[in-house]
Amino acid sequence: MSPSNIDPNLRSWVDIPEHSDFPIQNLPFGIYSTGDTPRRVCTAIGDYVADLQILSEHGFFEDLELESGIFEQATLNAFIGQGLSKTRAVRQRLADIMDDDLEEWDASELRTFFLIPQSEVTLHLPLAIGDYTDFYSSLEHATNVGSLFRGKDNALMPNWRHLPVGYHGRSSSIVVSGTEIAHPSGQYLPEGAEHPVFGPSQRLDFELETAFVVGRNSTMGQPVSTDEANDYIFGMVLFNDWSARDIQRWEYQPLGPFLGKSFASAISPWVVTMDALSSFRCDGPEQEPEVLPYLKLPDSSSYDIHLEAILETPDGKRMSLCQTNHKHLYWRMVQQLAHQTSNGCNVRIGDLYASGTISGPDPGSFGSLLELTQNGTRPITLPDGSKRTFLGEGDTIILKGYCEGNGIRIGFGECRSTIVAT
Amino acid sequence: MSPSNIDPNLRSWVDIPEHSDFPIQNLPFGIYSTGDTPRRVCTAIGDYVADLQILSEHGFFEDLELESGIFEQATLNAFIGQGLSKTRAVRQRLADIMDDDLEEWDASELRTFFLIPQSEVTLHLPLAIGDYTDFYSSLEHATNVGSLFRGKDNALMPNWRHLPVGYHGRSSSIVVSGTEIAHPSGQYLPEGAEHPVFGPSQRLDFELETAFVVGRNSTMGQPVSTDEANDYIFGMVLFNDWSARDIQRWEYQPLGPFLGKSFASAISPWVVTMDALSSFRCDGPEQEPEVLPYLKLPDSSSYDIHLEAILETPDGKRMSLCQTNHKHLYWRMVQQLAHQTSNGCNVRIGDLYASGTISGPDPGSFGSLLELTQNGTRPITLPDGSKRTFLGEGDTIILKGYCEGNGIRIGFGECRSTIVAT
Repeated sequence: MSPSNIDPNLRSWVDIPEHSDFPIQNLPFGIYSTGDTPRRVCTAIGDYVADLQILSEHGFFEDLELESGIFEQATLNAFIGQGLSKTRAVRQRLADIMDDDLEEWDASELRTFFLIPQSEVTLHLPLAIGDYTDFYSSLEHATNVGSLFRGKDNALMPNWRHLPVGYHGRSSSIVVSGTEIAHPSGQYLPEGAEHPVFGPSQRLDFELETAFVVGRNSTMGQPVSTDEANDYIFGMVLFNDWSARDIQRWEYQPLGPFLGKSFASAISPWVVTMDALSSFRCDGPEQEPEVLPYLKLPDSSSYDIHLEAILETPDGKRMSLCQTNHKHLYWRMVQQLAHQTSNGCNVRIGDLYASGTISGPDPGSFGSLLELTQNGTRPITLPDGSKRTFLGEGDTIILKGYCEGNGIRIGFGECRSTIVAT
Repeated sequence: MSPSNIDPNLRSWVDIPEHSDFPIQNLPFGIYSTGDTPRRVCTAIGDYVADLQILSEHGFFEDLELESGIFEQATLNAFIGQGLSKTRAVRQRLADIMDDDLEEWDASELRTFFLIPQSEVTLHLPLAIGDYTDFYSSLEHATNVGSLFRGKDNALMPNWRHLPVGYHGRSSSIVVSGTEIAHPSGQYLPEGAEHPVFGPSQRLDFELETAFVVGRNSTMGQPVSTDEANDYIFGMVLFNDWSARDIQRWEYQPLGPFLGKSFASAISPWVVTMDALSSFRCDGPEQEPEVLPYLKLPDSSSYDIHLEAILETPDGKRMSLCQTNHKHLYWRMVQQLAHQTSNGCNVRIGDLYASGTISGPDPGSFGSLLELTQNGTRPITLPDGSKRTFLGEGDTIILKGYCEGNGIRIGFGECRSTIVAT
């Protein structure tokens, strides 16, 4: 068994429901609290949260030479900052503790002292996010959006196949799953109008994305190569890049998306480690023309992650809006990081680098309503027969994601946001 | 005397050189250290730094009910977070202590115990910057740049006069004056070439800007109006938005500037308070067409701040590149903040909101080499007779800024960066 990858045959004594996102092979990291317990580092196992501070107090990490108080933190940044060898050792120790073969404790009542049902805790934004970049790395998404706005022949800009296009995003308004999103207002130009108006967005949309979390500070002026990039990528989260298409459309020339995005982005509470995802590496789309040397692609740097977006309407009805896969992404995470740092820009622990909307080749795999409804011209039909183009107050979007293979499922849980009136 | 504005007739017993940026009426805030002293909050007076921790230890702030340890900090964020009534009281107390009429101490050797020559200290990045936005608020700059890239008739986008266009910038690579800037490399499309190349930027440029510092957290989902905005603006700094024009030009469509900017931005070490600048409020350019109500302009919300950019070549020769004024800006800071939060986006203490390049109406007032050299087609002549379009290794750019009137000068010091080989 490699130090990074927990034995696929391992089973836990913790009762784990079938199809749970959180088997003993996952062990993601998050931050929880309860009415009695302030924010602390935890992991997920089945339907439970495991409190790492309690385990630490009982001496389970004593030999790992961790900084004192490293689990009594409001974010994961300090824990991640201990370095990959220590965070790996902690994750491996967690697996040892929950291993079915563990013979140290017989009484099951005793050995669950560090487990709390997820339903009884609050999960928090797990990171202090210094900078956040949103890439635009799906060829299908860039082509779909470009076709809608500039026609099929000009869909892709000349730079698109040469570099992972991206823009700086807003960190302050990234919230954790479960946080209500205030319906944004803004300035937009109504169809056919001569003057802009200010009011609630009429074209509120989600974007199905993932983001990777930086696990190591880089030095300003020193690029990180595609070969080195994996050492800087700690884990991944689901990412909903909430978008107000009308605000975005009016404002974005010439400096890019701004208020059409900055009202909110949502992430899943669990940071799934790249170690947990490593069995699901795969080859991705061929890149043509060949990329410049600083973007040279290491083998198998795509990930086979099933992704889904679900709409829950105010009456509680649910429908799947799209199903796609991370492996469709043209630009890989290691290339995004190499590009981001190629000019000497430094990255910091806790930074988020989002994929951009992940669309696949067929219409059922388009990761935004902009694409699914062809910019609002082809409404989707809801379970009750009503039609819908964009989102409104009371609507909930749920993102889900998981890898599956060899009888193991490594999942992200969900990223859920409900739109509310301001 | 208003609590916010220190008596213009006040004189200090500290020896202050003529034309100093730092009379007793300024008292900006910064962070310094020496070999012996870790980072601490300080102010500037003449050629000295005044250590607020030393004054605090001697009881000078005892009645102000400040948090303990508030001056023993690596950034100003916690100090600013005490709120405007307390930071104002501290600044007023500093003026009282350094007032020429002060009779409490007779022996001048004794009363200088908290002063250290600026030449003996290191000044640090004064803020932990959560988010940074770069606006594009100079009509002259937007027109100049737009004309170069899209011709005079399409210079301004249709949105420009309706909203303060801006984009999210990179926080991690904002450095303090004096920090060397590594010459960035990047991907660009050489003139007439079919394929992009990767290499050192051939069109390295500065941008003469200022930025305001947020002094109060706002709540997500709750816009800040133009009337409320002044309560959220703590102070200002000089801002050099370093730019690689070739990288920027190739990458910026359709999502805006990214690596062409993110290799570095530099700020002056002193945060000059809005209180110190308040005597220099003035009327700015008329806004036509009338703005939407959420951008409604309070009276006199422009500032009369002289600004200059100076080039120092590797042989030590200096020349002034441009002189301009903050009052030329079309979009005011209160409008920028109201626009930034109009969609519910929250701002946080320490955030920076930069003006965009501040160009004036005549060519000597253009705030970037892009404009001064007409995109490199009209080189400038250096003191030694040589020609220059963009910047190279060994070049230093120094930004300066000050307000002046009634015999008082409120200045920012300088923002200096030297380009070095990587």
